[in-house]
Amino acid sequence: MNTEDFRPEKEIKVFYPPQRVLMGPGPSDTHPRVLNAMARPTLGHLDPVFTEMMEEIKGLMRYAFQTKNRMTFPVSGPGSVGMEMCFVNMIEPGDKVIVCSNGVFGGRMIENVERHGGVAVAVMDKWGEPVDPQKVEDALKKNPDTKIIAFVHAETSTGASSDAKTLCELAHKYDCMTIVDTVTSLGGTPIKVDEWGIDAIYSGSQKCLSCPPGLSPVSFSDRVTELVKNRKTKVHSWFMDISLLLNYWGSAARTYHHTAPTNALYALHESLLMLAEEGLEHSWARHRNNYEALKDGFAALGMSYVVAEQYRLPQLNSVFVPAGVDEKEVRRRLLAEYSLEIGAGLGDFAGKVWRFGLMGTSSRIDKVIFCLNALETILSDMGLEVERGAAAAAAHKSYAANPML
Amino acid sequence: MNTEDFRPEKEIKVFYPPQRVLMGPGPSDTHPRVLNAMARPTLGHLDPVFTEMMEEIKGLMRYAFQTKNRMTFPVSGPGSVGMEMCFVNMIEPGDKVIVCSNGVFGGRMIENVERHGGVAVAVMDKWGEPVDPQKVEDALKKNPDTKIIAFVHAETSTGASSDAKTLCELAHKYDCMTIVDTVTSLGGTPIKVDEWGIDAIYSGSQKCLSCPPGLSPVSFSDRVTELVKNRKTKVHSWFMDISLLLNYWGSAARTYHHTAPTNALYALHESLLMLAEEGLEHSWARHRNNYEALKDGFAALGMSYVVAEQYRLPQLNSVFVPAGVDEKEVRRRLLAEYSLEIGAGLGDFAGKVWRFGLMGTSSRIDKVIFCLNALETILSDMGLEVERGAAAAAAHKSYAANPML
Repeated sequence: MNTEDFRPEKEIKVFYPPQRVLMGPGPSDTHPRVLNAMARPTLGHLDPVFTEMMEEIKGLMRYAFQTKNRMTFPVSGPGSVGMEMCFVNMIEPGDKVIVCSNGVFGGRMIENVERHGGVAVAVMDKWGEPVDPQKVEDALKKNPDTKIIAFVHAETSTGASSDAKTLCELAHKYDCMTIVDTVTSLGGTPIKVDEWGIDAIYSGSQKCLSCPPGLSPVSFSDRVTELVKNRKTKVHSWFMDISLLLNYWGSAARTYHHTAPTNALYALHESLLMLAEEGLEHSWARHRNNYEALKDGFAALGMSYVVAEQYRLPQLNSVFVPAGVDEKEVRRRLLAEYSLEIGAGLGDFAGKVWRFGLMGTSSRIDKVIFCLNALETILSDMGLEVERGAAAAAAHKSYAANPML
Repeated sequence: MNTEDFRPEKEIKVFYPPQRVLMGPGPSDTHPRVLNAMARPTLGHLDPVFTEMMEEIKGLMRYAFQTKNRMTFPVSGPGSVGMEMCFVNMIEPGDKVIVCSNGVFGGRMIENVERHGGVAVAVMDKWGEPVDPQKVEDALKKNPDTKIIAFVHAETSTGASSDAKTLCELAHKYDCMTIVDTVTSLGGTPIKVDEWGIDAIYSGSQKCLSCPPGLSPVSFSDRVTELVKNRKTKVHSWFMDISLLLNYWGSAARTYHHTAPTNALYALHESLLMLAEEGLEHSWARHRNNYEALKDGFAALGMSYVVAEQYRLPQLNSVFVPAGVDEKEVRRRLLAEYSLEIGAGLGDFAGKVWRFGLMGTSSRIDKVIFCLNALETILSDMGLEVERGAAAAAAHKSYAANPML
């Protein structure tokens, strides 16, 4: 056969993506500073200049996670790899894990427990509701041999926030370890790893950190290191075995493990630096204030939230599609006419719910107003009765009390 | 605790990496076109513009791998994840796998087999030598229940190339499937997936494709799809289960699996496009010609290769450190004075061998000459008797016969 026989039939050109405004469940808009950082010259993964930058990333991650954990580093893969790294290292065959499930990602955790030989005890809550600590305590009482409690702090599929602090207290009371998914919360809402006593935590780069997708910041307590050291069986993965990874990320010897994604890490460094410059508390307040503005705008459009107010994530707003509206067509038009991306509902919420993300760089008042105006125009076009300009006015009014970009 | 208590003590600034010349075992230099591509605006992973680009990547990958395999896509992780994806999907508990080991990566394959419940039969060859097909056939005769043969096409730790065509013929003769590591060969030396009948193949983005590290191009034959479909046990990984992944990469429905690393994929698209523009056969010839030039330069410096000529990889040149030379100091000076990175030896070769990569964008005659001159200067400084200018002259002479940038 000739090598030319395998050429793609279609002519392929350089890819120039359009400039979107990303207000879905992630990725969020990447800041130009972060995009620039990615485009800097590639270094070798053992270059001393590079390994020094790795140390800075670890320091900045400790700040973002609010921890002194030595084992704090970015996994060279998306959030799902970060999730799996927690489960595959901490579970040995037969270990019992209570998994709180109130959305897509709780369900994925159950898959993880079972595929790695554990026994999952599911504590189910309705989609859109937070994890109910009472149900967790009931499950703990029924399953005194539970080793780990796993839950999602910020359910990206619904926009519900669970009370991580209380759930961690329960874990401590019953002498369990914790695995906490903070993919959508890191940088956007408070996380306090050390104060709450979280054992294993993972996140993603593409949400409130506003870095392109592909990396998963993780942190493990010393209890996890001990646990892994004392395993009776080998971790069921070579790539995800943290005891091997630590020889690269955690030791001065920098033993080769895999080739670190250098340019992606430049981006993460820059986005974490921007978070540190802004300050965590400012970032949390900014996410909150822009949510308040969006919420008031939605109210003016007569739209209602899926999640009760006290459990809402400011960075992920799930609202019901107004009756009679073709939700797919609205999303299509937002993208085609405004280059604006919002998210569809998943699972039971498919076709019934939209998800609006206000994460990281996408959490800005100009984007809130733009989004409300675009939505209003399209809904009005579709025959919905809306008072033109009311949504933006409501958002402006809310924001005026606490302006912050 | 106050959030400020967790700030890094050291002041952290924007990271500006120096411009290196990367002539180690990878990553290679990223072309400016590819760096630019990475810095383009982030898209959502379900954006129709993005998913169209994914299809282009698959088409370009099929050309690079020389295959019509439907299941051809980039894994969202480094080459080690591509490796593990092959093993975790194809092995069920108790399956026998012949693993050919003649360097670091063969050893890693054995770890993969065992961690995923398989039984590894190791066929050992010396570091620096190719896999011996006779030994493999002997092992096949002794182990008629072998299901898979796994081998490394291009051993990055030694620079030895193995005869993938012959090894695949053996596999077919004994009705086995194949897993082939082409991390360092893809784009640099011929790979013909369909012609050779390879079942599972993986590579890395950061070698002869000259894309930043972080992605692993893989391709699976229909036999693998069938195998995975008929598994009796669930794949021991959620993230790496190809039957789940295919709902995103392989179907029009684009069911959400994980958030694809959008910007890293822009870079891969651009580097694959550049490979297609250049043409595979030209790229292979270019890697060969620059190797010839480097080889003649090394000869003028009195340096000798680890690997016998007929088994050498043009893109990865392992040479012995001249007697009496402090190899670490040479590498330190190359980096400090010339911003030139070369590789150290691994395992038994540590301290005895250097690895010079001529991969992708780093495989250019100007870099060959620069490297030879720098090396000559430092070795001369260190008291080695070298004829000044001879190495560059030899390389120039070799290259003049077949100039190609």
